[in-house]
Parts: sequence; C-alpha cells; structure tokens
Amino acid sequence: MKIKVSRKEHFNAAHRLFNPAWNDEKNFKVFGKCSNPNYHGHNYELIVTLTGEPNPETGYVYDMKVLSDLIKEHVINQFDHKNLNLDTEFFKTLNPTAENIAVVIWKILREKIDQSLDVKITLYETERNFVEYPAS
Amino acid sequence: MKIKVSRKEHFNAAHRLFNPAWNDEKNFKVFGKCSNPNYHGHNYELIVTLTGEPNPETGYVYDMKVLSDLIKEHVINQFDHKNLNLDTEFFKTLNPTAENIAVVIWKILREKIDQSLDVKITLYETERNFVEYPAS
Amino acid sequence: MKIKVSRKEHFNAAHRLFNPAWNDEKNFKVFGKCSNPNYHGHNYELIVTLTGEPNPETGYVYDMKVLSDLIKEHVINQFDHKNLNLDTEFFKTLNPTAENIAVVIWKILREKIDQSLDVKITLYETERNFVEYPAS
Amino acid sequence: MKIKVSRKEHFNAAHRLFNPAWNDEKNFKVFGKCSNPNYHGHNYELIVTLTGEPNPETGYVYDMKVLSDLIKEHVINQFDHKNLNLDTEFFKTLNPTAENIAVVIWKILREKIDQSLDVKITLYETERNFVEYPAS
Amino acid sequence: MKIKVSRKEHFNAAHRLFNPAWNDEKNFKVFGKCSNPNYHGHNYELIVTLTGEPNPETGYVYDMKVLSDLIKEHVINQFDHKNLNLDTEFFKTLNPTAENIAVVIWKILREKIDQSLDVKITLYETERNFVEYPAS
Amino acid sequence: MKIKVSRKEHFNAAHRLFNPAWNDEKNFKVFGKCSNPNYHGHNYELIVTLTGEPNPETGYVYDMKVLSDLIKEHVINQFDHKNLNLDTEFFKTLNPTAENIAVVIWKILREKIDQSLDVKITLYETERNFVEYPAS
Repeated sequence: MKIKVSRKEHFNAAHRLFNPAWNDEKNFKVFGKCSNPNYHGHNYELIVTLTGEPNPETGYVYDMKVLSDLIKEHVINQFDHKNLNLDTEFFKTLNPTAENIAVVIWKILREKIDQSLDVKITLYETERNFVEYPAS
Repeated sequence: MKIKVSRKEHFNAAHRLFNPAWNDEKNFKVFGKCSNPNYHGHNYELIVTLTGEPNPETGYVYDMKVLSDLIKEHVINQFDHKNLNLDTEFFKTLNPTAENIAVVIWKILREKIDQSLDVKITLYETERNFVEYPAS
Repeated sequence: MKIKVSRKEHFNAAHRLFNPAWNDEKNFKVFGKCSNPNYHGHNYELIVTLTGEPNPETGYVYDMKVLSDLIKEHVINQFDHKNLNLDTEFFKTLNPTAENIAVVIWKILREKIDQSLDVKITLYETERNFVEYPAS
Repeated sequence: MKIKVSRKEHFNAAHRLFNPAWNDEKNFKVFGKCSNPNYHGHNYELIVTLTGEPNPETGYVYDMKVLSDLIKEHVINQFDHKNLNLDTEFFKTLNPTAENIAVVIWKILREKIDQSLDVKITLYETERNFVEYPAS
Repeated sequence: MKIKVSRKEHFNAAHRLFNPAWNDEKNFKVFGKCSNPNYHGHNYELIVTLTGEPNPETGYVYDMKVLSDLIKEHVINQFDHKNLNLDTEFFKTLNPTAENIAVVIWKILREKIDQSLDVKITLYETERNFVEYPAS
Repeated sequence: MKIKVSRKEHFNAAHRLFNPAWNDEKNFKVFGKCSNPNYHGHNYELIVTLTGEPNPETGYVYDMKVLSDLIKEHVINQFDHKNLNLDTEFFKTLNPTAENIAVVIWKILREKIDQSLDVKITLYETERNFVEYPAS
C-alpha cells in the first residue's frame, strides 16, 4: 500500500546559463538572454516527493515537519538568496539549468532519506517552466 | 489509448492527529501541535483521477458532472464542515493523517466507479503538504 | 509618495460559528453547517498591508522580514493549529467569523506598528471567501 | 538519467459538445449545458511534457524557448480565439471534449518532436477539470 | 467599522467583440482576433465585494452562502455555458468587453443587495486581464 | 462611470539590496541575505492598473493588447533576464527594493499613458511579498 507524500518549499537565487567550454558568442547563441553575464534570477518552487508505506503507528509515510527541516537544512540554506554559479560548489563547473539543479537537489536529499523510500524532485523555475527527476 | 481525467473538489474540516494507544506525552512528542486536543483544521483540496479509454460516442472517459456529483454525495457530504475524529465513523479509531484520509476516500470511491477505470486520489492538506494514493 | 507593502502568512485553525445568546436551533438556522458543535476548520491566508513613505536610506516602507516575524510572534503563534473558540481569549465570547477574526488581528498588529503607517488586514477563509478591514 | 521538462501555454476558445449521429434531445440529455447550440468557451491551460536524457553540453532535455515557439506555431495559432467546432479541421467531426482535444494536440506535437523524447499532454479545461494523455 | 466581504464564483462563456455600427474590416482592425465571427470563450472568474458594518448578532457583514446563492441565481444561471452575444439580452447590442460585462453584473446585483452596502465587481477574463467596477 | 483595467506581466531578474553610503557590515546588518554581494533573483509579477472611463465605441478603458505591448517594450525589455543593479541605469545608484522598482516602473509608464487615465503599479517580488504604488 504505497503512498506518495510531498512537501513544497522555495528559494530565490541568481544564475547564468553558461558552458565554459564555449566562447561568449556560442553561449549567447545557445542560451540567449539566459546567458546574461551579470546574471538574472528566479523564485524557485521545489517539491520533494517521497514514496513508501505508511507507518502503522503514526499513519505517516514521513513526518512533513521533518522533511521540511531536512530540505531547509540541506537545500534552502545552500541555495536561497545565493548566486548559484558563484556561491555554490555544485554549479562552479556544472551549468545551472533547471534539469541540473533538480538532479543536484535529488543527490543531496537521496542520501539523507531512508532507502526504503523513493525520492523525486519537481522544480519550477517559473510558473510556466518546470522539471521532474527522476522521470519514472 | 488510455487517458486520465481529473476532478477537483474541496472540503473544510477539523481534525487532530492522535494515536489512542499512546499517552498524551507521546502523542505530543510525535505529532506536535497537530495533536492539539481541541483540534485544528484545514481547507482540503481533493483531486480524483480516473484512467481509462474514452467512450467513442461521447469522447468522455467519464462525465465530469457525474464524477463531481459522486464525490459530493459520498465524500464531501460526509467530511465537509465536520470534525473528522468525532463526526465520521472512519476516523474514530484511525488517525486522520492526510495519508489515511486519502486511502479512506479511495476506498469509498473505488467501489462506486466501474472496475474498467483506475482510481487515484490526490489530497492537499495545505498548499505545501499533499499526498497521492495509490502511488503507482 | 505613499506606497503599500504587503506580507502574506497563513495559519490552520478549527472554529465554530456560534452566538451564545441563541439556542442551538437558532444557531443552526443562521449559521448552518458552520455551527457544527464539534467544529470544522480552515487554512487561513492572512495578508497584512502597511501604507507609508519609504525610508530614503533603505528604500523600505517596512522590512518584510521584521513584519513577518511580528505577524508570527503576535498572530500565528496564537492562532495556528488552535481551536479559535476554545484555545484563544479573543473568541471565547466573540463569534469567530472571518470579519471578527480580521478585526481582532488588526487590533493586535495596530499597536505593534508605528502610527505613521496605516495597517490593513485581508483574510482568506477559503479561496472563495475573504474579508478586508478596514474597508477604506 | 531521464528527466521530464514541461512548458505551460494557454489558449482561449469556444466549443460545443455534440455528437452529429444523435438528435438534439439526445445531445442535451448526454452533454447538458455543454451542448448549448450557440457555444460556450474556456481559457484552456496546456502543459506539454517531454521526457528524455539531458544534453551533456547544454544541460537541457529540450530548450523551453524552442518548445514554447513550437507549441505557439502548431497549436496556439490554430486554436486561440477560435471556435473549435467551426474554425478547425480537427473538430468538424470529432467531439471537442477535453480528452479529444488533448489527443489531437499530442498528435500535432508528437510528429514535431524527436522520437528519442516521450511527449505528454495535460490540458486544463477549467481549474477543476483536466485530462492527461497518454495516461502512462 | 466598515469591512469588505468578498465571494468568488465563475462562469464559462463564449463571446465576440463587435461594434455593429462598424463594418467587419473596422471591427477586425480594432478588436483583432477577439472579433472572430465564430466566437471564442473564457473561464470568467467573478468576485463580488460588499462593504458595510457587521451585524453585531451574527458577526457577518453578509452571509456568504446567501451571496453565493444570489450570484448563482441572478448571474451564473444567465451567463454560464452561454454565448454572451447571442444567448443574453444584455449583449445583443452592447459589446461584451470585460468592462461592459462587469458593469452589467454590477447593475444586476446592485438592485438585489440592501442599499446600506456598497457593491463592487472584479472580473477576470483571463488570469492576466481583469477589470473592477466601480473604480472608487 | 470609472472602471479599473489591469494587465499582468512578469520578468525574471537578479538584484542586490545595497546602500553605497554604508560599509558592508552596515549593509548586511540592515538587508541581511538580500545584500549578498553576488546577487540573488526573483520572478517578478507586475500588474499595471489603469483607471478611466470606457470608450463608448469600443467598450474598452484601454486595449489590453496595446497595454501589454507597452509594458513589454518599455519595462520587460529593460528588466527581464537582467541584473537590476548592473544592467539598468535606474538602479545604479537607487536601491532596487520592491518599493523603488514599483516607483521606477510607474514613472516609465506614466509618461506613456494618456493623462486622462490613472496609473497604478502592483509588484510581487515573491508570492508572499508585494507592493503597490501609488497607495491611494
């Protein structure tokens, strides 16, 4: 009897899409205004979904307060009000597309959550653009 | 050619998280302010999703008006403006976590919907906490 | 050059509409299912709006972090995960309609905010029902 | 390492639910007010989801700007501010239910998107009624 | 001690912007695709706001259930799943812009609501276009 | 018979709160993480509201397509995917608080809109923080 439980959090960050293997001209051709060298930013909405069996004593798959605290400690504290390219280790060499940010967040949280639970990340970069990882 | 169709409804209810096998101290330790003995409450948003083949004559998988009426008759009328712990049979002994409420609603609706259709419940307890059953 | 600045917070509470001067029959006639003796509940969305001149040194009418902390300390801590009728002094004799809750919150915050600023409360009881005080 | 990426667009259209094999009485019995002969309309919200591997050079599964342009050129330009029954070839004989509109949009976009990517359509007819195709 | 209370309802309708004093060319020049002769449509979101003193016995400015029923009886029943130009008396000669629809709804409701209360209409034609009447 | 008409647009930008008359220590004390020297960012939601009499021939207070184009040409093109502090003239010396951004946008649009119409700006920096100018 598996159930999915989800918690939504948010962080506000600056970023720039940029492949250091390319020159500026190529970066602008591929990433357009998202490659503005002075950065731009977003209100990221993050949904973390865990799948598993509810605990028969609590009726919880996972305590949402504990999940919220875990996301805040390990994700929000690192990314909120930061420049993703300059202020985090993760995106010094990795391009901070929504896809890559979602995978990074998944890796951070996957190792903090018991292996009996599946972990999935949904990340809204804007109200109209969002990604999900893993896809299945 | 299977399609999913979904209908969103809502109900407003009071509840308290509580395991009668535990003393008050243990309940507060596990459920925190959600275990307030005088109850608190939520605007629950409920999405019912049916999966099946569309009827070639109507183009409908299911008539959304009929689904809305079914949800209102069998779920909303029992839960809306009620105290889930005190006013419903379901949660007199079962802890009304979002997980357990979703499973109860699934059981109520599963037997009212033709077996050719899959039934899935998504329940938002708040804008930031929600559950889905079944998970697959 | 007056500007309005607003901060949105939320709390989840149980309540019951009830006039103690009336018998149960009259209460049910007037308040319907909102008068359920075992309570029901809502996710209240609260917007606090301050109107004033921006400080020329900060560019702020009011620091939103300070406003958020003020709302949490004086409103959310008293109302969140509570039964408004039983767990607060305010609604032991006052009927907790959205109108009355908004006026109570306005009175709490009005005395914590400098008189050079106007204070206005918007309170959503549900996505479809909301009130504003004062009206002008 | 498959990831889902989604883009949300919208269009405003008139339609009427109608099976030409039936007389008016039967159409009204089945479709109710949705069969009003003078049409009614909706603000349709359309989400197009692609599933695939991110390109290691860009970090994109698909460029959202390119996807947005593709949806606008092939879907929005045909449906926006149109009468689906009268102004499009698709629904001259096919009943424009949300289910059928989603399948038509999927067919239009499926042939414009590389076969290495899965395509899924989510279509909101109203905030409370929506469909997804394919279901799996 | 005046308070504003608001109730949100919705209706789905087809319409066409059209000035019968102009030829088709002029109508298209002014109204563009909104003048499509076969109509298009919207999910209209309607907010009705009443301003007045709360009743000391109920704590209500107005019973939201009564306001909802009034809106449904006098507005939604006339406009929902209708073609505003063809199916209503109001817009046979009056152009159904959001501005004009709001004024018509205000006139309908103004005479059903006690004169001690102010009435204001907010009408969303889309999530991004909306009007308010009266302005003050 | 004055009516308000509103158009919602958005832009994504990086910024940093900073008073150049203060040292870093003072800036951090006042603006906290909003003063991060490498910037952070937001999805700004901008609502432009015009108040005036509807044109009797069109039924429009203002053509929303024209207003949308005006906002895009004079505001979005300057601010979207930009660093407000570095990439715009406006905020090279003015602190880009939501209050100041709203006043700047008001000044830009006020001179593009006929004086018979009032202009008001509502700017959401996040879903929970927003400002309105002018206040009256």
